[in-house]
Amino acid sequence: MKKYLVEFIGTFFLVLTIGMTVIDPVVAVGFAPLAIGAALMIMVYAGGHVSGGHYNPAVTIAVWLRGRCPSCDVPAYLIAQVLGAAAASFITLYFKGNPTLTGKEIVLVPALLAEFIGTFALCYVVLNVATAKGTAGNSNYGLAIGFTVTVMAYALSGISGGAFNPAVAVGATLMHLVKASNLWVYIVANFAAGALAALVFKFANPDDK
Amino acid sequence: MKKYLVEFIGTFFLVLTIGMTVIDPVVAVGFAPLAIGAALMIMVYAGGHVSGGHYNPAVTIAVWLRGRCPSCDVPAYLIAQVLGAAAASFITLYFKGNPTLTGKEIVLVPALLAEFIGTFALCYVVLNVATAKGTAGNSNYGLAIGFTVTVMAYALSGISGGAFNPAVAVGATLMHLVKASNLWVYIVANFAAGALAALVFKFANPDDK
Amino acid sequence: MKKYLVEFIGTFFLVLTIGMTVIDPVVAVGFAPLAIGAALMIMVYAGGHVSGGHYNPAVTIAVWLRGRCPSCDVPAYLIAQVLGAAAASFITLYFKGNPTLTGKEIVLVPALLAEFIGTFALCYVVLNVATAKGTAGNSNYGLAIGFTVTVMAYALSGISGGAFNPAVAVGATLMHLVKASNLWVYIVANFAAGALAALVFKFANPDDK
Amino acid sequence: MKKYLVEFIGTFFLVLTIGMTVIDPVVAVGFAPLAIGAALMIMVYAGGHVSGGHYNPAVTIAVWLRGRCPSCDVPAYLIAQVLGAAAASFITLYFKGNPTLTGKEIVLVPALLAEFIGTFALCYVVLNVATAKGTAGNSNYGLAIGFTVTVMAYALSGISGGAFNPAVAVGATLMHLVKASNLWVYIVANFAAGALAALVFKFANPDDK
Repeated sequence: MKKYLVEFIGTFFLVLTIGMTVIDPVVAVGFAPLAIGAALMIMVYAGGHVSGGHYNPAVTIAVWLRGRCPSCDVPAYLIAQVLGAAAASFITLYFKGNPTLTGKEIVLVPALLAEFIGTFALCYVVLNVATAKGTAGNSNYGLAIGFTVTVMAYALSGISGGAFNPAVAVGATLMHLVKASNLWVYIVANFAAGALAALVFKFANPDDK
Repeated sequence: MKKYLVEFIGTFFLVLTIGMTVIDPVVAVGFAPLAIGAALMIMVYAGGHVSGGHYNPAVTIAVWLRGRCPSCDVPAYLIAQVLGAAAASFITLYFKGNPTLTGKEIVLVPALLAEFIGTFALCYVVLNVATAKGTAGNSNYGLAIGFTVTVMAYALSGISGGAFNPAVAVGATLMHLVKASNLWVYIVANFAAGALAALVFKFANPDDK
Repeated sequence: MKKYLVEFIGTFFLVLTIGMTVIDPVVAVGFAPLAIGAALMIMVYAGGHVSGGHYNPAVTIAVWLRGRCPSCDVPAYLIAQVLGAAAASFITLYFKGNPTLTGKEIVLVPALLAEFIGTFALCYVVLNVATAKGTAGNSNYGLAIGFTVTVMAYALSGISGGAFNPAVAVGATLMHLVKASNLWVYIVANFAAGALAALVFKFANPDDK
Repeated sequence: MKKYLVEFIGTFFLVLTIGMTVIDPVVAVGFAPLAIGAALMIMVYAGGHVSGGHYNPAVTIAVWLRGRCPSCDVPAYLIAQVLGAAAASFITLYFKGNPTLTGKEIVLVPALLAEFIGTFALCYVVLNVATAKGTAGNSNYGLAIGFTVTVMAYALSGISGGAFNPAVAVGATLMHLVKASNLWVYIVANFAAGALAALVFKFANPDDK
């Protein structure tokens, strides 16, 4: 139960930071990727020792395929992450005065590709810095994971909006940053990228079972 | 005595950075949350081994409830923090030429909620990265703690001003960034959030006494 | 083979981030050096334990001269890096709608000098933080390496464009950010700087064979 | 000799970054403190194991007073630092086309105070994170030291220009960012702050000889 609470809290703060820095932000929008990646970073450091600090269903799937997340935990992790994202979305809408937004326009193939590339980077980094023998003991797993979202958001948010996370995509849909008719794009691309990252990890770390 | 001096110094530099980057700043105001979080980070690294590096009465209360701050230290910590904030406020006003400011307008319920959420994040991160067995030996406690303030300031300063710290709220009141009639909002929300963070920490780390 | 795949992936994400944040960027161009340096940082943390995390032919030469890269790996590393840069360039051009660019105008001597200085800094930092006995066990090698590119890009990109990496220069040529007639400037300056950094490292660390 | 070379190189890159990001910068001037602090950070990580990574005469004096720098090294360190700053200044002026600058106007007492406060913060952080028993083994000394300059530059550069380093002040004078008639302000305030930081360190760490 404590693992699910930690996943809820971490995803809550990630999605709250996204909503508050993207919808009518207080400072220039260029700082949003920095704030969002840092939100993930701090929650990885705060919760990693309890739940692993996924805060992202695609990461949970990638870690499960790599063999570092028990199958019995997967459904509850995904539910906790989506509930955390939903709670953050409602509070963000309250803070922002329930703004009327219409959702980002995307072009299908580039958006699928951008979400796939960005989520692959994130899951590839997570598996290598947080589950590999070769990086055990390194303190910077959280820095690397958080800043992967920062980097990919600077690079790719113009194409797809930059979710790289199905729970974030659900939250963004609730906040009307993503059109409900496009939600499947994120879910498909993100889970596919998580699965490929697990395969690449196993190929690159053959002795690390 | 050395612990109180370190708390004074750290809170001094935190509040000095807030005042100097928020009141008539030299560069775009978007950099202020970065500078302020980094100020907390450097002081956590510099003073953590002496005093624990709280620089925040809400953190002191949370660490005390978690059982990692002796009761006899609490009053002196709070006094040292408030004195450091006050000293920084007077020097900031001197540097800025005693500007006439009227204090941020806030709406009560959202401001209480924003201060509660942001301070909860900060105390939750502090307890997990600086006092938990599961993260012992990790070098990045200061990075995580400092950037929690950065993240929450980017997300929530538009709602409440973003103190997340009763000593900062006192300093901001002395610098006329916060209206004196609103000071209680910060004190109530920040201490309540620190207490909840201690409860959540104990639930999520049941074997870590 | 796995080492070459990791070099391909890392250089891919480095060059993708460069292209996406420099060509018609989503946010102010001032964030590009931060995103680019962070892209290198995350890939160093993700791939360092497999391939060493070079992602840069000049770094590979410097590490080889210092005696920490087998001669038999050098050609394949360079090929993997250039292929990763090329793949990222084509995807970037696709995302950006195949923009018409004419390549940065440079003045020969300052550009050679800027590329030499920036690449020297990068290789000097890499050798000292990732291959020296004196820094063994320090978690921050990736942070130092990535932010060297950030720092040198803020300082020197106005003079030379700021590649500091022959594979990046090839990618930038394919994306028409660098004129093909100037590509040799980067290759000459970057490799020369890598060689000097190896010499300086050996002088400064005489007991570290 | 190798220690002096490392001090020369580190101070060179610190002052080069200052000049290139402050004189007619490529991107918004708000990024300069970030680039400058990161320049110090990378050079601390690259050279700390050889020379201690001071790159600042005030830091050298503070470390010497604390008992961690041999007296016989002090003069050569100061000379190497000033030579590195001078070399960077000449190359910066060459890159920038020898611009005509008149030097920052300062008001004496606030400028003395700002330089004293900022340099105290820097030396206080250096002594605690890089020379104290209580932080031995922590990887983040370079992050803390570098970002102290970032923080103090955001906070105080509007008052004094933000050198916090006599070698930087010499370089800034050669680049006409500081008026020659004001150079003494920096030298006096910086060395005095380094001495006070050593005293405070000894008081706060009485058992750490």
